[in-house]
Amino acid sequence: MADSPNCDLKSLSPLQLFERVTEQGEKVRALKAGKAPKDEIDAAVRMLLSLKLSYKTTTGQDYQAGLPPKDLVLINNGTTKEEDEDLVDPWNVQTSNAKGVDYDKLIVRFGSSKIDTDLINRIERATGQKPHHFLRRGIFFSHRDMDQVLDAYENKKPFYLYTGRGPSSQAMHVGHLIPFMFTKWLQEVFDVPLVIQLTDDEKYLWKDMTVEKAYEYARENAKDIIACGFDVNKTFIFSDLDYLGTSAGFYKNIVKVQKHVTFNQVKGIFGFTDSDCIGKISFPAIQAAPSFSSSFPQIFNGKENIQCLIPCAIDQDPYFRMTRDVAPRIGQPKPALLHSVFFPALQGAQTKMSASDPNSSIFLTDTPKQIKTKINKHAFSGGRDTIEEHRKYGGNCEVDVSFMYLTFFLEDDDRLEQLKQAYTSGELLTGELKKVLIETMQPLVAAHQERRKQVTDEIVKQFMTPRKLAFEF
Amino acid sequence: MADSPNCDLKSLSPLQLFERVTEQGEKVRALKAGKAPKDEIDAAVRMLLSLKLSYKTTTGQDYQAGLPPKDLVLINNGTTKEEDEDLVDPWNVQTSNAKGVDYDKLIVRFGSSKIDTDLINRIERATGQKPHHFLRRGIFFSHRDMDQVLDAYENKKPFYLYTGRGPSSQAMHVGHLIPFMFTKWLQEVFDVPLVIQLTDDEKYLWKDMTVEKAYEYARENAKDIIACGFDVNKTFIFSDLDYLGTSAGFYKNIVKVQKHVTFNQVKGIFGFTDSDCIGKISFPAIQAAPSFSSSFPQIFNGKENIQCLIPCAIDQDPYFRMTRDVAPRIGQPKPALLHSVFFPALQGAQTKMSASDPNSSIFLTDTPKQIKTKINKHAFSGGRDTIEEHRKYGGNCEVDVSFMYLTFFLEDDDRLEQLKQAYTSGELLTGELKKVLIETMQPLVAAHQERRKQVTDEIVKQFMTPRKLAFEF
Repeated sequence: MADSPNCDLKSLSPLQLFERVTEQGEKVRALKAGKAPKDEIDAAVRMLLSLKLSYKTTTGQDYQAGLPPKDLVLINNGTTKEEDEDLVDPWNVQTSNAKGVDYDKLIVRFGSSKIDTDLINRIERATGQKPHHFLRRGIFFSHRDMDQVLDAYENKKPFYLYTGRGPSSQAMHVGHLIPFMFTKWLQEVFDVPLVIQLTDDEKYLWKDMTVEKAYEYARENAKDIIACGFDVNKTFIFSDLDYLGTSAGFYKNIVKVQKHVTFNQVKGIFGFTDSDCIGKISFPAIQAAPSFSSSFPQIFNGKENIQCLIPCAIDQDPYFRMTRDVAPRIGQPKPALLHSVFFPALQGAQTKMSASDPNSSIFLTDTPKQIKTKINKHAFSGGRDTIEEHRKYGGNCEVDVSFMYLTFFLEDDDRLEQLKQAYTSGELLTGELKKVLIETMQPLVAAHQERRKQVTDEIVKQFMTPRKLAFEF
Repeated sequence: MADSPNCDLKSLSPLQLFERVTEQGEKVRALKAGKAPKDEIDAAVRMLLSLKLSYKTTTGQDYQAGLPPKDLVLINNGTTKEEDEDLVDPWNVQTSNAKGVDYDKLIVRFGSSKIDTDLINRIERATGQKPHHFLRRGIFFSHRDMDQVLDAYENKKPFYLYTGRGPSSQAMHVGHLIPFMFTKWLQEVFDVPLVIQLTDDEKYLWKDMTVEKAYEYARENAKDIIACGFDVNKTFIFSDLDYLGTSAGFYKNIVKVQKHVTFNQVKGIFGFTDSDCIGKISFPAIQAAPSFSSSFPQIFNGKENIQCLIPCAIDQDPYFRMTRDVAPRIGQPKPALLHSVFFPALQGAQTKMSASDPNSSIFLTDTPKQIKTKINKHAFSGGRDTIEEHRKYGGNCEVDVSFMYLTFFLEDDDRLEQLKQAYTSGELLTGELKKVLIETMQPLVAAHQERRKQVTDEIVKQFMTPRKLAFEF
């Protein structure tokens, strides 16, 4: 799974293609106005026509001056200015709104369903457990077919969980833990098998990295994932580079997906171009295939029709929209999904955290001192410019990154509500709110580091060995 | 490996793209001449520009009216008329010349080297064996880097053989045996390991066929291949669908090739389009990967740099031109190649035999009676219309399919030369030549059937089990 911007693709998102066409149009006008040589004008016109063609192929729409693309990966953030559009795909998350992406609009554009109170209550009834604070606070906010998963569960039919990570570097940040913390909770309350894909092949294809290095990162990242507390008897973690060569079922599902998805489709969904390598173009099938239980014959005893539930950040949804489109055509059930919001960068909710910028995130390797410095120095504040103004008008929790982080990591609902009221009223100062966050994150990261130390190479090997889990199928 | 025409691709060969551009140009001229509405003319011009762009991207050349594409997969057959061009790629072999494709011109266009007397003599010196009649008679006529393979062999450095087959149906015809008969000879005289790829995944992707059926064909075809007499201790036969899930090295090489080949490149080489599935687009990497010894760690003890020699029909060369282009960029030696001519259909040398037309071929399942009937009824004759004319002017061996077949299957050089002289002089009639062919093919096919009967499922399993062979690395 991807987690950071990629220059090749970024330069070719529908929006940027739109900008290229606009620029080229201006160039043609300027050449004509400047009475440039005919050859030069003709060449510029040909380029313009070619760009318009690419734009149409990519977006399915004709280029219209001043009207940026409204396709699946773009949402309008509720304002009337085009520059306020949110860009959300597996490689890009961008919004100009300090509150972050408008998730209600994203649900409408992606065609998913909101996780509402009814669904949360149903999960509570089905499991007999208080819903995780990620559900209560709308951090997991959207789903596809979660009702069907609950139907199956209530009828004692089995299902399994699938999530993943693209191991782009050794260091993971706290935002990377969100899907794993939630998946762990799901696994515990439903008591189901879990498979975790490490897409080291994807990282090899997208980055300047050897196969060996990508596999090494996968194994290092597995340690952080295991340190979240997964049960080795119920969890299988796999590297694509490794597992593809040891599974009787995985490649067969990959090639089935690959037969049913055209280049036109992945071009439309992921923005691939003719200059992309064939590895990138066919990769979406590799992220799709673990959605089908026959990719894991050792776990599911070769059974093909076991329902899959995928908890993931919303930017991964394009992969699974594609998967859900293909599933019935290859005789497989569609995977269900639970989508999380993005974890904000310290600098503000406009972008997703990036593992490549050490100051954008709190890393799982940070010392207590580094955590303190980073939060004090970089966490974007919703407070006022002066103490006097802050006391008078109060702070803005909707854009304050320290408060946002506390909604992710402070489990105590009452305490969080107190903090919100005190900060909004002006009673609590930015420095005081940051202190609460520091005191929340320091022990959380330290405890993670302590657990990670216990994860030996032998334990990683156990998790990554294809085997039967503690479930009968 | 592919062996029959594919309509999707055929419609998008450089030549057909050329024809589309030409047609569109005529349409534009007609619209202008007929003073059609401006909108209509503009739309036609835009389509023309777009087609010209596709043409340029595919062929690397600007469209020039009246000048059909001269790219890698097209050769001019020595005449001045464009309609006499030979079309040669993994899915198409077409020529209008009854003698078949002009192979000397193909060598020039593909940039390979002719197998000349010097090279044949060198093979004889190196192995101490009389060269196979396929070499002596120019049936294997072209090569890449065979000198280097001989250098390595003379310096006691190891190499290995790689060939393959696309298992499109249960029935194989005698033409399918050519690469295997020759490979068997090479393996015996050089005493080297051999890997044989059955591209059941390719057949699943290209045909209306299930994964299970493709794998079944692979196993059935393996029986015919084994019946050629390969040594189980020196030969590994694998199905892609099966081996990809059991090899620690194969997928890693596939993904390395996939990283270094763009869609633009496979579009140019294989004629893929945006409507093709992503499985087809990435497949060339799967045919490339067995060219690298690290795809077979169990045979080569994990060694990466062992030279590969690929005997195959010339239509498979595009895959290996691509492979040779990628090899140095992923730190691997380029595979060497030995190319065979095409095996002619009974109806004449204009096309390659097809497994889908039972009358175009002698099948390995044919009875003696079927063989006799097919040859008598369908084998294109180079003889004269009447016995009187034949006696007077003689027959033409260059277009006579019975004679062509005898060059493939009649090992006795003196006998073949006698037949040629007698037929050319008119002394031997068509019916008499056909009788010689029938008497050659009947025992050959019967003996094959007898050997195939001995090939049990257990023997197939032995050949297809990844294992160490009788060589130390």
